Amino acid sequence: MATVPLLSDDDLDPRAKAVFDDIRATRGTDFVNNFWRALAHQPEVLEATWGRLKQVMGPGALDPLTKEMIYVAVSVANGCSYCIHSHTASARAKGMTAQMQGELLAVIGMAHETNGLVTALQVPVDEEFQA
Amino acid sequence: MATVPLLSDDDLDPRAKAVFDDIRATRGTDFVNNFWRALAHQPEVLEATWGRLKQVMGPGALDPLTKEMIYVAVSVANGCSYCIHSHTASARAKGMTAQMQGELLAVIGMAHETNGLVTALQVPVDEEFQA
Amino acid sequence: MATVPLLSDDDLDPRAKAVFDDIRATRGTDFVNNFWRALAHQPEVLEATWGRLKQVMGPGALDPLTKEMIYVAVSVANGCSYCIHSHTASARAKGMTAQMQGELLAVIGMAHETNGLVTALQVPVDEEFQA
Amino acid sequence: MATVPLLSDDDLDPRAKAVFDDIRATRGTDFVNNFWRALAHQPEVLEATWGRLKQVMGPGALDPLTKEMIYVAVSVANGCSYCIHSHTASARAKGMTAQMQGELLAVIGMAHETNGLVTALQVPVDEEFQA
Amino acid sequence: MATVPLLSDDDLDPRAKAVFDDIRATRGTDFVNNFWRALAHQPEVLEATWGRLKQVMGPGALDPLTKEMIYVAVSVANGCSYCIHSHTASARAKGMTAQMQGELLAVIGMAHETNGLVTALQVPVDEEFQA
Amino acid sequence: MATVPLLSDDDLDPRAKAVFDDIRATRGTDFVNNFWRALAHQPEVLEATWGRLKQVMGPGALDPLTKEMIYVAVSVANGCSYCIHSHTASARAKGMTAQMQGELLAVIGMAHETNGLVTALQVPVDEEFQA
Repeated sequence: MATVPLLSDDDLDPRAKAVFDDIRATRGTDFVNNFWRALAHQPEVLEATWGRLKQVMGPGALDPLTKEMIYVAVSVANGCSYCIHSHTASARAKGMTAQMQGELLAVIGMAHETNGLVTALQVPVDEEFQA
Repeated sequence: MATVPLLSDDDLDPRAKAVFDDIRATRGTDFVNNFWRALAHQPEVLEATWGRLKQVMGPGALDPLTKEMIYVAVSVANGCSYCIHSHTASARAKGMTAQMQGELLAVIGMAHETNGLVTALQVPVDEEFQA
Repeated sequence: MATVPLLSDDDLDPRAKAVFDDIRATRGTDFVNNFWRALAHQPEVLEATWGRLKQVMGPGALDPLTKEMIYVAVSVANGCSYCIHSHTASARAKGMTAQMQGELLAVIGMAHETNGLVTALQVPVDEEFQA
Repeated sequence: MATVPLLSDDDLDPRAKAVFDDIRATRGTDFVNNFWRALAHQPEVLEATWGRLKQVMGPGALDPLTKEMIYVAVSVANGCSYCIHSHTASARAKGMTAQMQGELLAVIGMAHETNGLVTALQVPVDEEFQA
Repeated sequence: MATVPLLSDDDLDPRAKAVFDDIRATRGTDFVNNFWRALAHQPEVLEATWGRLKQVMGPGALDPLTKEMIYVAVSVANGCSYCIHSHTASARAKGMTAQMQGELLAVIGMAHETNGLVTALQVPVDEEFQA
Repeated sequence: MATVPLLSDDDLDPRAKAVFDDIRATRGTDFVNNFWRALAHQPEVLEATWGRLKQVMGPGALDPLTKEMIYVAVSVANGCSYCIHSHTASARAKGMTAQMQGELLAVIGMAHETNGLVTALQVPVDEEFQA
């Protein structure tokens, strides 16, 4: 259970409703996931978060699928179960194949391992990396 | 300072030396960074780690640059300073532009923020994400 | 499921029972939550933890509600779901309004974002902060 | 060293310069700390981050000092050394006394301990916390 | 739910089947837990992970039970619920008594607390620890 | 630099001095490390922390060296550099050999890797682990 009630469409104030409308229009689906329904109690945080997400996750020098996989990787390291499920689903919707997911998984596992080894060893940063 | 001495080339046992030779040949440079010099005390761990890294980070369904950026993202979330420096340097060497680094940064910041929000709100996973 | 059985009141040894009595007297309720029932197998850890908690979370230079919100913030960053639920409930019981919860949420989200950005950028500490 | 060069005032593009001007005006000091100088390469991220920070950390249902202490608590749990230094300095500037800092410290230590215990025990959330 | 389907014995390709056979032979039980069933989609990652685990967790200068308790401690700090359950079960199977589990718990709690205090205080490393 | 001044022996109040005396007597050395000097501003936290540490880390069902290695493992996962240095030094003083340190390292690396894999895969806990 969430620490706040999840708002249904009928519970939204006008500012939150406008954000939900934009989420639906941008994504081309009527489905609005629970994260936004939980944030909807704070229209200001909802607006700021959706506004930034739309901008940050859109196409740029990095393509949207690459961005989703980076998002999954951060969410795994932070142990955010909801975020792992939602961004894995988004990555799949944007074209992540089983082979790509397998390689993403392998990089995540490898990075966690060497992060642990490096931290245990307290390895000093090479001068070559600081140029 | 590291929690173990960093081995110079003259201190390596034959098994560790063979790994260092392969690192140099694979990367096309004489430079071997401190992580491997710290691991060199445990030739078995050194071999296994380098062997896996070479395989995991090579080209596949995901290109090596994408993999480096995912590595950076995990390392940031795990707070591994050495890993951030070394894999940012690797990503640059593999073609990460300033614009790409800026977008990587923006995704990392965004993911951390929503990870925190979702966790604070304890949002339940939507059924739609579990199909 | 917990990794140890949760003890009911009938299962307690005298030392654990004394702690439960003090929890009930201090809080003015018969309800003893699962955390203490799981710790009750280790009366020494139970005593030490409750003793410290009672002292640390009481009124001082910081009021108990502020302390609960700080507790929630730490628990979010550490991803402790149980702790988020229990200390959010405590904060509400001590007067946290929906508006205060919304601002707490916004600070938590913001702090996670800039923690991620600062770590990715490896920003050196300004001398001005070290005085 | 940072993973990007820190920009001096002479290196700023107009958009970044406008943010620096606002930071100076808002804080009433000429000092602009390294975090903003590192972010200045990405004027869009700089603008969004400063804009949100100014809004989130200002007075509301929670006072600015309480918000700074919550910020410190998150930064400790995330292990962000720069953030701990900068927000501890901000909290002091906003009136945090040595006694308050000591209590903040005690709550942070306590929360980390019980987060660890609860996670090790995998305590199930009491129904009473989910109302 | 997992982010990949869990493979039953009938779904395995020959390489994954060989790993499952070795897991069963090594552990002397027909039971193969969900972690391996989730990894089985990536036979290469499955092989590498099982191969390393078998080697790393076997007897050496540290006995297998000590290794399991260290594994639990890392899993708690990383907030990996599945890992806490599976390695607590393994530790019990290898002889961890209730008294040992209680002391493991106390060390984990203590370490989390002082990790938080030290990080909040940003204590500089004593020269004496760097020899 | 620490976020509080480190107290020298001459700066201690009587309560803190008594703790320092006990640290010296217990450890059989005049050396008191920086952690205690930073905590000394809060005699109550200092007393409680030292009192618990002395009790928790002493001999019991687990020997002191095993406890130190568990402490190191938690500190690595939490990224506490000071704690890694101090408890690695303690473990060495209590008899950790290079071979033992190497195996500790290998378990830490392995646990981090599988923690990451399990979390990315969101593996559900087997019923067999919940008995």
